[in-house]
Amino acid sequence: MNAFISQLSFISSITDIDQLQKYTSDSSGFTSALPAIVLRPASTEEVAACIKACVAHQKNYTIQGGLTGLAGGACPDEGDVVISLERMNQIEEIDTVGGTAIVQAGVVLEQLQQAVLEQGWYFPLDLGARGSCQIGGNIATNAGGNKVFRYGTTRELVLGLEVVLPDGTVLNMLNRVIKNNTGLDLKHLFIGTEGRYGVITRACVRLFPKPAAVYSALAALKSFADVTVLLKEARASMAELSSFEVMWDNYLKTAAQVANKAIPFDGQYPIYVLLEAEGAAEGLDTKLTTFLEQQLESGLLQDVIIPQSEEQAKGLWHIRDASGETLRIMKHFVAFDIGIPLKHMQEFIEKTEQALQAKYPHAMNLFFGHLGDGNLHLLTGKLTEEELLPVEDLVYQLTALYGGSITAEHGIGRIKKPFLHYSRSPEQIKLMQKIRELINSDNLLNKARVVE
Amino acid sequence: MNAFISQLSFISSITDIDQLQKYTSDSSGFTSALPAIVLRPASTEEVAACIKACVAHQKNYTIQGGLTGLAGGACPDEGDVVISLERMNQIEEIDTVGGTAIVQAGVVLEQLQQAVLEQGWYFPLDLGARGSCQIGGNIATNAGGNKVFRYGTTRELVLGLEVVLPDGTVLNMLNRVIKNNTGLDLKHLFIGTEGRYGVITRACVRLFPKPAAVYSALAALKSFADVTVLLKEARASMAELSSFEVMWDNYLKTAAQVANKAIPFDGQYPIYVLLEAEGAAEGLDTKLTTFLEQQLESGLLQDVIIPQSEEQAKGLWHIRDASGETLRIMKHFVAFDIGIPLKHMQEFIEKTEQALQAKYPHAMNLFFGHLGDGNLHLLTGKLTEEELLPVEDLVYQLTALYGGSITAEHGIGRIKKPFLHYSRSPEQIKLMQKIRELINSDNLLNKARVVE
Ligand SMILES: Cc1cc2nc3c(=O)[nH]c(=O)nc-3n(C[C@H](O)[C@H](O)[C@H](O)COP(=O)(O)OP(=O)(O)OC[C@H]3O[C@@H](n4cnc5c(N)ncnc54)[C@H](O)[C@@H]3O)c2cc1C
Ligand SMILES: Cc1cc2nc3c(=O)[nH]c(=O)nc-3n(C[C@H](O)[C@H](O)[C@H](O)COP(=O)(O)OP(=O)(O)OC[C@H]3O[C@@H](n4cnc5c(N)ncnc54)[C@H](O)[C@@H]3O)c2cc1C
Repeated sequence: MNAFISQLSFISSITDIDQLQKYTSDSSGFTSALPAIVLRPASTEEVAACIKACVAHQKNYTIQGGLTGLAGGACPDEGDVVISLERMNQIEEIDTVGGTAIVQAGVVLEQLQQAVLEQGWYFPLDLGARGSCQIGGNIATNAGGNKVFRYGTTRELVLGLEVVLPDGTVLNMLNRVIKNNTGLDLKHLFIGTEGRYGVITRACVRLFPKPAAVYSALAALKSFADVTVLLKEARASMAELSSFEVMWDNYLKTAAQVANKAIPFDGQYPIYVLLEAEGAAEGLDTKLTTFLEQQLESGLLQDVIIPQSEEQAKGLWHIRDASGETLRIMKHFVAFDIGIPLKHMQEFIEKTEQALQAKYPHAMNLFFGHLGDGNLHLLTGKLTEEELLPVEDLVYQLTALYGGSITAEHGIGRIKKPFLHYSRSPEQIKLMQKIRELINSDNLLNKARVVE
Repeated sequence: MNAFISQLSFISSITDIDQLQKYTSDSSGFTSALPAIVLRPASTEEVAACIKACVAHQKNYTIQGGLTGLAGGACPDEGDVVISLERMNQIEEIDTVGGTAIVQAGVVLEQLQQAVLEQGWYFPLDLGARGSCQIGGNIATNAGGNKVFRYGTTRELVLGLEVVLPDGTVLNMLNRVIKNNTGLDLKHLFIGTEGRYGVITRACVRLFPKPAAVYSALAALKSFADVTVLLKEARASMAELSSFEVMWDNYLKTAAQVANKAIPFDGQYPIYVLLEAEGAAEGLDTKLTTFLEQQLESGLLQDVIIPQSEEQAKGLWHIRDASGETLRIMKHFVAFDIGIPLKHMQEFIEKTEQALQAKYPHAMNLFFGHLGDGNLHLLTGKLTEEELLPVEDLVYQLTALYGGSITAEHGIGRIKKPFLHYSRSPEQIKLMQKIRELINSDNLLNKARVVE
């Protein structure tokens, strides 16, 4: 290790055990382990130097962004070298003509959101972890969040990347144009692959004009089938639709209670949709209100709440976002993040709930999610520690049966690696591995994540 | 060849010289050559059998879709085996709940557009070649077209693929969910890579609710700087904005003349924007009109034409789309399809026009394009045949200087392969090649396209 450190003496690094504690785990609750050293490069060249030193000394190394990941991907093994991007935190350029920004990987999401807002632009990626997660981590996990419905996942927001490959080569792909059909678009090797094929150092991202107004509403419906009709109608009627979040009754009740909020409706309904539309101020509130009133008259909606203030709107979103608080009363739990084709959603939920209730009658099963994107969250608990793995396996088996994805947003990392086969065929896994062998041949970079 | 044919006797094939003529070239005007045989598999298994036979007999093979490509990618070499997807022309499923469709690669774009419209859904990919180009070809070239601005390129419309690899393995990645973060998204190896890494046999594509109304308008402005302001304002004001096409004065004049249309405005202006918005019928025309009137009052627009009938709107689009007719009077010509960051666009155009006029004063240079996507078209002609290559080189050099892409839509194919280095670094090209060697190791599939 001494020769290793002296080779990198010009890079800010941490070896003090107290300070190392901060770098032992991400937000997944995956077991934490102490790295040997944390390297904190401040430039692409320094990242390349770190990687070359790891290769020269054949040391396993783990990449860390903001450590908000939920799949254990950023958790080091005992004695690993950690490369943290936290000092690559500069917004290098905001192009206010074309609506693009060049940012270093360690820029915190909220910092970018703020900086572009100040210039009259908008970066629509948004998630609860905005205050700590980094752009590099967002890209490595292809983060989703509340506005995917309108703007796509992180993948769709990235025009270009700069990446350091596991052999130390700097791959400059900082494309700034929307359309570029010059052969294989290599950036997709690094988006959503959780650092398995290279280290992201810089990105060129797309910006949007700042929406002048945002309006929300909560609708109550009588069935999931009605929710799918509402989704299509809402898409057809409002190009401004930016969120379409669904909560089943038991989630709404539990979350409202935990969040200390009154249940929004007097009556009780099986299912609720939280809609949001954002865009030009002129006419948007009327448009949303008219649309909802029509759906109420037609009988599709059972009831609807149109907030009369920002405060009231926030209250509705608080319930939607109270899953973290809800989990606190459910320990041990499994928090699922799956994708299911809409047309199978209802059947999937029924089958899953039946199977879980039959085997784990003591646990609650709360369903909600970014349904506009086919993304379902399910919280199952309380469970004993021994029950966790079998519960996961049960739900992922059913997910596979309905052609779903075992992780819509959070990624595979370390935690879901044993279940990858439920969403990817042996041929796909083989090709993923062959590409890993081609690019990360020594397998020192983020070893034991996603795929061998 | 006899042993080869007998191995594939169960597959519909063509060896008759007259009939083979149809398969000698695409729409690029690239020199045509007679293949030895055209195989027309009707299923994924048949495609796999064709590929295995080519490998067993070490025969080069070329994949053909609708032969509307503009980069020479589908043109066989003399004596090649051609695999045409034309008989894989079934729409297998339209999911009217989730808004997805499963289609075979040989389905003609227009056929898919029509079929989903009949079910109340909308497939927003649209281009002049819609009556012949195939979904497989659209995906292999990552086709763009007029509505990229709102819905993205073909890449963004594809949820999943089925592909046969060059070793005959069938890779089923027919994902149907919008969000799927289970590691490397392998479909991107096959989108926009012009058949270099595998043969697309089926796809799952995203559908959108059918827009009830479409409105267009033509605006006249005094500078490109004003166009970029209009673009941002229009994006901020109308989420329904679906096209933002720009024509410089000399393009508009020439195209109008060739198309036998009157020049739309009385006055003459340096630059024009054709806008289109599509969505719910209610209020959309008022919204567009109000927006344009405001921009006229503020002085951003010099003049504007708001068509009073579908007929009149079509007339405006006819001028925009008359590039094919325009080229007929410009032979020999180069038709460029490049991407330039908006903030450099004006300078790029000035520099390019100066350089071209200095060296080729006898040629016209007409500029227009999908400017909302940073996609510029330039028609340069008449030129002598000898001037074609140097003109290309000159324009691509300047494109590289401004960080642009040498092909925004049409792809590299055979024609732009010598210029690839202007848009991709040596490190990128090396990685593209290494992946080609990994997946298409024998290099029998679509040899000599895009990258070695
Ligand atoms: C309260 C909360 C809410 C959340 N909400 C959402 C949500 O709505 N949607 C969603 O998708 N996720 C959500 N997440 C998960 C998490 O925030 C995202 O996955 C985020 O993108 C991770 O970013 P990070 O910088 O913290 O990455 P880390 O946790 O540090 O790392 C994540 C993975 O990416 C790799 N990595 C990090 N940086 C780089 C880099 N520069 N180059 C290569 N690899 C790198 C790591 O090795 C690791 O495998 C939430 C998490 C929390 C705690
Ligand atoms: C009048 C006209 C207008 C056009 N307008 C546009 C436009 O606006 N935007 C735009 O982007 N393009 C445009 N094009 C170009 C062309 O239509 C597109 O590139 C189209 O996507 C090609 O589809 P195709 O089926 O004809 O492919 P082909 O020409 O048959 O093939 C194109 C390439 O893809 C490969 N390929 C085809 N099918 C498969 C498959 N199943 N698996 C693997 N590889 C395959 C071929 O080998 C070849 O390299 C236009 C062309 C014309 C003639």
